[in-house]
Amino acid sequence: MSYENKVRKVVPYTAGEQPKDRTVIKLNTNECPYPPAPGVISALNAIAADPSVLRLYPDMDATPLVQALSSCYHVDPEQIFVGVGSDDVLSMSFLTFFTGGGRLLFPDITYSFYDVWADLYRIPYTAVPLREDFTINPDNYIPSSPAFAAKGEDIAGIIFPNPNAPTGAELDLSAIESIVAANPDCVVIVDEAYIDFGGQSALSLIDRYDNLLIVQTFSKSRAMAGMRIGFAMGNRRLIRYLKDVKFSFNSYTMNLPSILVGTAAAEDVAYWKDITSRIVKTREWFEKELRDLGYQFPASKTNFVFAKSPHLSGDELFKKLRERKIIVRHWDKPRIADYLRITIGTDGQMKAVVDALREIEAEG
Amino acid sequence: MSYENKVRKVVPYTAGEQPKDRTVIKLNTNECPYPPAPGVISALNAIAADPSVLRLYPDMDATPLVQALSSCYHVDPEQIFVGVGSDDVLSMSFLTFFTGGGRLLFPDITYSFYDVWADLYRIPYTAVPLREDFTINPDNYIPSSPAFAAKGEDIAGIIFPNPNAPTGAELDLSAIESIVAANPDCVVIVDEAYIDFGGQSALSLIDRYDNLLIVQTFSKSRAMAGMRIGFAMGNRRLIRYLKDVKFSFNSYTMNLPSILVGTAAAEDVAYWKDITSRIVKTREWFEKELRDLGYQFPASKTNFVFAKSPHLSGDELFKKLRERKIIVRHWDKPRIADYLRITIGTDGQMKAVVDALREIEAEG
Repeated sequence: MSYENKVRKVVPYTAGEQPKDRTVIKLNTNECPYPPAPGVISALNAIAADPSVLRLYPDMDATPLVQALSSCYHVDPEQIFVGVGSDDVLSMSFLTFFTGGGRLLFPDITYSFYDVWADLYRIPYTAVPLREDFTINPDNYIPSSPAFAAKGEDIAGIIFPNPNAPTGAELDLSAIESIVAANPDCVVIVDEAYIDFGGQSALSLIDRYDNLLIVQTFSKSRAMAGMRIGFAMGNRRLIRYLKDVKFSFNSYTMNLPSILVGTAAAEDVAYWKDITSRIVKTREWFEKELRDLGYQFPASKTNFVFAKSPHLSGDELFKKLRERKIIVRHWDKPRIADYLRITIGTDGQMKAVVDALREIEAEG
Repeated sequence: MSYENKVRKVVPYTAGEQPKDRTVIKLNTNECPYPPAPGVISALNAIAADPSVLRLYPDMDATPLVQALSSCYHVDPEQIFVGVGSDDVLSMSFLTFFTGGGRLLFPDITYSFYDVWADLYRIPYTAVPLREDFTINPDNYIPSSPAFAAKGEDIAGIIFPNPNAPTGAELDLSAIESIVAANPDCVVIVDEAYIDFGGQSALSLIDRYDNLLIVQTFSKSRAMAGMRIGFAMGNRRLIRYLKDVKFSFNSYTMNLPSILVGTAAAEDVAYWKDITSRIVKTREWFEKELRDLGYQFPASKTNFVFAKSPHLSGDELFKKLRERKIIVRHWDKPRIADYLRITIGTDGQMKAVVDALREIEAEG
């Protein structure tokens, strides 16, 4: 016998590579190509000027950050939950809402952390196939529909990203509402990590549906993946349950820099709107170029495009881009093995990608 | 029916108060009275000088921080796990090591988060009574001993702080070794949050016992409660299991400031030794003064003293100190209701406490 018999054994999530070589064009983890809001500098300087503030525990409610988000999104502070990146928020939400029995539903092509969390918490799940065009069929999530994906079974919960990742495709608000309305007995999480790049948020529904949780992040549109800040918004009671679990896990999760820097970023709405609209413009240009090259991709409402070459396999194209020091994301998985997820960088970076693709396609 | 039937309902941990009023003498959460190491300032300035680094995901292995800890403690990087404060490390450890069946053992008077984590993860537990003098009886944790606390039962694991909190009392290394050696079938966690104030670490045992995990924190002796940095050290395999669960929970938990600032703090061994020895000196002076006033307390090897007035109840004394703007920690719980846990602050702060106690005792 050994302690190992008692260990919770799991297969962890594999994140996109973080290359040490800073000369590569890094378009593999959907980071923002622009720096964070200027206020972030003053926030860091304030701590450096009086580092003694670090000796104290931080505000466990992250009050200034929650207030700033409250102003930004016009929701009450009691409707907001913050965590160490949206992964932390989602993981805590799985533990809080999805472990009460029944089967969890999420798309078959989606954020590849969902099945990892389900396995971690021993939640049975069904990966519901997307349509051929990579869109979600809402009927698969509606118990009364003949297309329901878990007939006769109790549902632990539902989660999907909107827009979906890695496809970039958006599900419209009325379809989301129909899913939420049809499942009052479980929590529906809409993972809006990429909502700020042209998608329509389901936030407007949280006052009408007590079982809807919206999760967002500072890692993409707020240009701060390095700070690890994510948040959820929902009904007060739902948020209270989530906080109870969070405060049973760790009292002080947001460190002082996260609180201060996050607050500065959340307060600068103009800067945020500016960088996200620049990324949308670059994406639109890039999509046009891809079409000209004969690439196929779902219309993207995100800061990435999920595209397929007219001639090359995903693996071949990935390697050829990599030889040219362009790193994108590829999954060797059913249905999507011929696609690459390409993050939208600066205009210059995307021009370099288009040039590389043109060259590669000409070679092939 | 409602989604609420499926929610994991828990009673969260209650942390010590964080008063907004900065004029109080705050001795209630065992923070360090001195600022963090000077290198912390340069680390923050480096980020402020190039905030664009924040747009990228941080190094998920927190390599520089792990390297610095590796040098500081002379253990391999593969023997180190880092997290968002030792609470995060402990919570992750409970999930990894203690959910495999059987009963968890920890002292009845101890860190009050242990039963919260056990409840969160639905782990049955026995709170094993300390001796009358608030020391741990190691025989209670040794299956072959007649004093074993869980006769005939399978053991999920064992955890205790050393020195214990809130008592401050240390268990000697040979007793710890006897517990670890007697329980090869489960993980034993020694929570060394307060080890740097004169206690003897069990770190030397990790190469001999594969079931021993040592957990420490930057919140006390490293003066950085505001940064949320904790770490564990143990056998490579044990650490690998813990990482697998951690990477199934959240890929990037340590934000860039934590990695850089933590590294700076871990590298400055001289500063760390200096502030901890100053706190030990202040504690020794304070203990002498308390004895003169007729107070009872276990000998402390921590940055706090757990003391009982010769005349007043814990509740009365707590209130009288509070009237004088001195905030300490009091638990209205069996066996310890007459004790206050008083953090060791600066010499000036402790002199103010002694003056206040003298005044209060004279009144009473």
